[in-house]
Amino acid sequence: MERLSLRERIARLLVVRASGHLADGQRRYPRWELDNGELQQLLELGVGGVILLGGSAAELALRCRMLRRWAGGRRLLLCADVEEGVGQRFEGATWLPPPLGLERLWQSAAGEEARELAARYGACTARQARAVGLNWLLAPVCDVNNNPANPVINVRAWGSSSACSAELTSAFIRAAQAGGVLCCAKHFPGHGDSDVDSHLDLPVLPHDLARLEAVELPPFRRAIASGVASVMTAHLSLPALDPEQPATLSRAVLHDLLRQRLGFQGLVVTDALVMEAISARHGPGEAAVRAFAAGSDLLLMPADAGAALEALETAFLTGRLSTDDLEASLQRRQRALEQLPHEDDDGPDPERLATLEQGEDRALRQSLLLRSLEQSGSSGPARGPGLNLIRVDSTLQCPPLAGLAPAVIWPERDGWTTRIIDGRSPDPWTDREERPLASERLPEGPVLLQLFIRGNPFRGRSDAQRRWSAVVRQLQQEQRLAALIVYGSPYLWQALRQELAEGVAGVFSPGQMPDAQALCLQRLGWSSAAGPDAGFTD
Amino acid sequence: MERLSLRERIARLLVVRASGHLADGQRRYPRWELDNGELQQLLELGVGGVILLGGSAAELALRCRMLRRWAGGRRLLLCADVEEGVGQRFEGATWLPPPLGLERLWQSAAGEEARELAARYGACTARQARAVGLNWLLAPVCDVNNNPANPVINVRAWGSSSACSAELTSAFIRAAQAGGVLCCAKHFPGHGDSDVDSHLDLPVLPHDLARLEAVELPPFRRAIASGVASVMTAHLSLPALDPEQPATLSRAVLHDLLRQRLGFQGLVVTDALVMEAISARHGPGEAAVRAFAAGSDLLLMPADAGAALEALETAFLTGRLSTDDLEASLQRRQRALEQLPHEDDDGPDPERLATLEQGEDRALRQSLLLRSLEQSGSSGPARGPGLNLIRVDSTLQCPPLAGLAPAVIWPERDGWTTRIIDGRSPDPWTDREERPLASERLPEGPVLLQLFIRGNPFRGRSDAQRRWSAVVRQLQQEQRLAALIVYGSPYLWQALRQELAEGVAGVFSPGQMPDAQALCLQRLGWSSAAGPDAGFTD
Repeated sequence: MERLSLRERIARLLVVRASGHLADGQRRYPRWELDNGELQQLLELGVGGVILLGGSAAELALRCRMLRRWAGGRRLLLCADVEEGVGQRFEGATWLPPPLGLERLWQSAAGEEARELAARYGACTARQARAVGLNWLLAPVCDVNNNPANPVINVRAWGSSSACSAELTSAFIRAAQAGGVLCCAKHFPGHGDSDVDSHLDLPVLPHDLARLEAVELPPFRRAIASGVASVMTAHLSLPALDPEQPATLSRAVLHDLLRQRLGFQGLVVTDALVMEAISARHGPGEAAVRAFAAGSDLLLMPADAGAALEALETAFLTGRLSTDDLEASLQRRQRALEQLPHEDDDGPDPERLATLEQGEDRALRQSLLLRSLEQSGSSGPARGPGLNLIRVDSTLQCPPLAGLAPAVIWPERDGWTTRIIDGRSPDPWTDREERPLASERLPEGPVLLQLFIRGNPFRGRSDAQRRWSAVVRQLQQEQRLAALIVYGSPYLWQALRQELAEGVAGVFSPGQMPDAQALCLQRLGWSSAAGPDAGFTD
Repeated sequence: MERLSLRERIARLLVVRASGHLADGQRRYPRWELDNGELQQLLELGVGGVILLGGSAAELALRCRMLRRWAGGRRLLLCADVEEGVGQRFEGATWLPPPLGLERLWQSAAGEEARELAARYGACTARQARAVGLNWLLAPVCDVNNNPANPVINVRAWGSSSACSAELTSAFIRAAQAGGVLCCAKHFPGHGDSDVDSHLDLPVLPHDLARLEAVELPPFRRAIASGVASVMTAHLSLPALDPEQPATLSRAVLHDLLRQRLGFQGLVVTDALVMEAISARHGPGEAAVRAFAAGSDLLLMPADAGAALEALETAFLTGRLSTDDLEASLQRRQRALEQLPHEDDDGPDPERLATLEQGEDRALRQSLLLRSLEQSGSSGPARGPGLNLIRVDSTLQCPPLAGLAPAVIWPERDGWTTRIIDGRSPDPWTDREERPLASERLPEGPVLLQLFIRGNPFRGRSDAQRRWSAVVRQLQQEQRLAALIVYGSPYLWQALRQELAEGVAGVFSPGQMPDAQALCLQRLGWSSAAGPDAGFTD
């Protein structure tokens, strides 16, 4: 370590963003994802970590190997937002239903079973992450989701109460870290009570320390007590703690609260510095300097890695930042890496990658799906055929409906007509608030309504609840609603199930994956018997 | 070879279907794609080939390695329908514009340039196929596309005249086979003049031998003269040659015409036996026996590989099929394998896979795009913002629009509203034939109309031409048509360009890939300057 240049030591603190795909042409977000030339150069300069998104699990395994080679064999931090299993981001691994689905189980008498499932959740994610070459999970979300209007946390959280969140995230962390990866408790000091999307603007939390101690901090305290390796900062403003700076850039939050009051000794990592709430206020260099000055060790996704390096070097050389702090951060990083098991680098084994998901993972997935399913009204087979009306965010990027998704294919096999609504489909709406759906322009017959809505980031606050409540009422007045399935938001489900007339079946799953669809449709009387599908060669 | 059992020798002749993905759960067509357990068992039994579809190029490289391992190191035939570059089927490799786009160049004075581009097309496909582990291209399409209503060949052909098709496919074959892979001339004796989709029903060609010699056969004669390693049979009926059997099962077509009259010494492979035209008439075992009896060496995608093995073994044991013919087929297979260069099996190299597409491939892609682009009317910037109306087959499986496709993103960046129509979107149609578009229900302003239509298989004959001609006329009457882009079918383009009023710009590309979109939009005045896109971490 002593023989490294200042520039190299600084570079270790950066975590840059790359696509999980191998080729530059496959990048989905070329503005944010470095090309291979830039990536190789930065890794040769000493950059210490990469956050990956996109590609299959198999491709990611090749990708991680390539990055390690470019780093010349030194240990890298390789991370991803795999909050819901590695398969949430990388196809071919296990995609688990969202954590919030465990809360009902925890609230029931079966708290111990919920803890056990959370631990298996962590173990599954850790084992598969290691198998593809990741060593750092940007999970779990420790935010207490006590604001149903939260557009960005929602079902990613492990509870809407501090106690549930603290219990389940700590079980996740212990199991995952025992599985040989680092975890990251996010987003400190708590992002659950915001109703602004921090990807788009800076949310403001009016809470003081007493309130934070009562609601937001307990999961982080438990995570720290459980030995969590890292904590991620939130891009939000807490005027009671720091009237000037958002948490990510606030010494009051990171140093005084997290390090001193909570006694956290591990790695503090910023949320993506490229996010609007930070990048719009400071240049890419200045944002990195301020984040480090506030107490961050690692700087995630600087908008411009070169500018960040430059600005940090100047700040250390001029004494604006302390090189003692730099050494301390590097030591924390080193200690984290030393927690990790030895990495062998034989190259990806196809058979191991083909069987990332083991029987125990399938069992876990099924348990979570069953435990989080809710149902109301009749459960007889839906009358049909009729109209299968599906709502998704975007059909063009819709992993739940990729391939032969049961939500689409099963009803079609039985003669139902599918209509999918997204933000780019022709408009099925009237201008009447109480009869919003132009149902006379849609195919006839009973309606199976399937809503894929989970409050994703980038969509701002949604009026989905009001509109879909009106659609449910309208279709019932028209005596056309055969059944409702909500995939995703429990809050939307709670609102819509109240509207359901007697005899109209409703099913809810927090998961959106094909298995969740199959399970919900089975509850409505569909069977999984294979029907015809296309797929010939040319 | 002598020590193999009869069962093992027969198994060598089968080419079974598998997904290019590693894990069973990633299969898109589980009814047609064997699971890994079945696949491993069949390869251990001695099955000699696998046809692959799906997955990225990087994943396919791992997949091919796994298959070779399961085959215990013996040489496999690993093939795919990569008619338009490996990237047509496997993301991360080069996706080239369809071959028919070269015909105009060939018709002009620049025949030599067209031949050279066809050769580069073959060389590019071969080099990338080898790099991912494939050794057999199910290309080129040697059918003469002289029937614009053909729903299944269309832009996949290399010409609508025998001469063009023969010239260009032979250039492709020579270059590709010089690049170390086997080629396959398809679909014998010619599928260009059918207007029924053979995936769905059996087309009937009324032509006699004299007509076939004049139109359909020349490209196959040239392919054979060029040393093509294999010929694929067509699933169509030629009553003049064989009143009973479709070509795939016809000894008159395969033995008398292909082997004897045309003197083909290489491998004859059936088209997919699972296709409706064959599988509906015969069981999976009987279809395989009949195909072999007719003169096929290799049996592609038997509907049930176990049943095919069983039926073939019985037929050889009872003398219905001749074991001399079996030995002859095995020898042809062996000779084909011996043409191939040595395979090293060091495991996929990530850096090599990340750079499958080289500068020369990009140059080829750009040349093909530029050479096949057509344009009419004004080329000034489209007035806007307005409505960007896009038609695709299915948004859920739409490689051209995956990721941040220029057709969607560029106009959106400039304030245009996208509406995408596919077979599952809410209906934008009126019941008036001459004003088919419910334009009053669509967003206001000038319309950029982008049609992705290339006459894909499985869609039957399309009335696209009539409907879209009416839409063009309607939007012009409403003074709303700003510009038209057709991606795919030159026949649709020819029909629609005649409708375009003066001053309305029209652009055509046979390619649908993002580069084709970018080029067409540039011709309409859009620029490629990067605009904002999403892509933060959570």
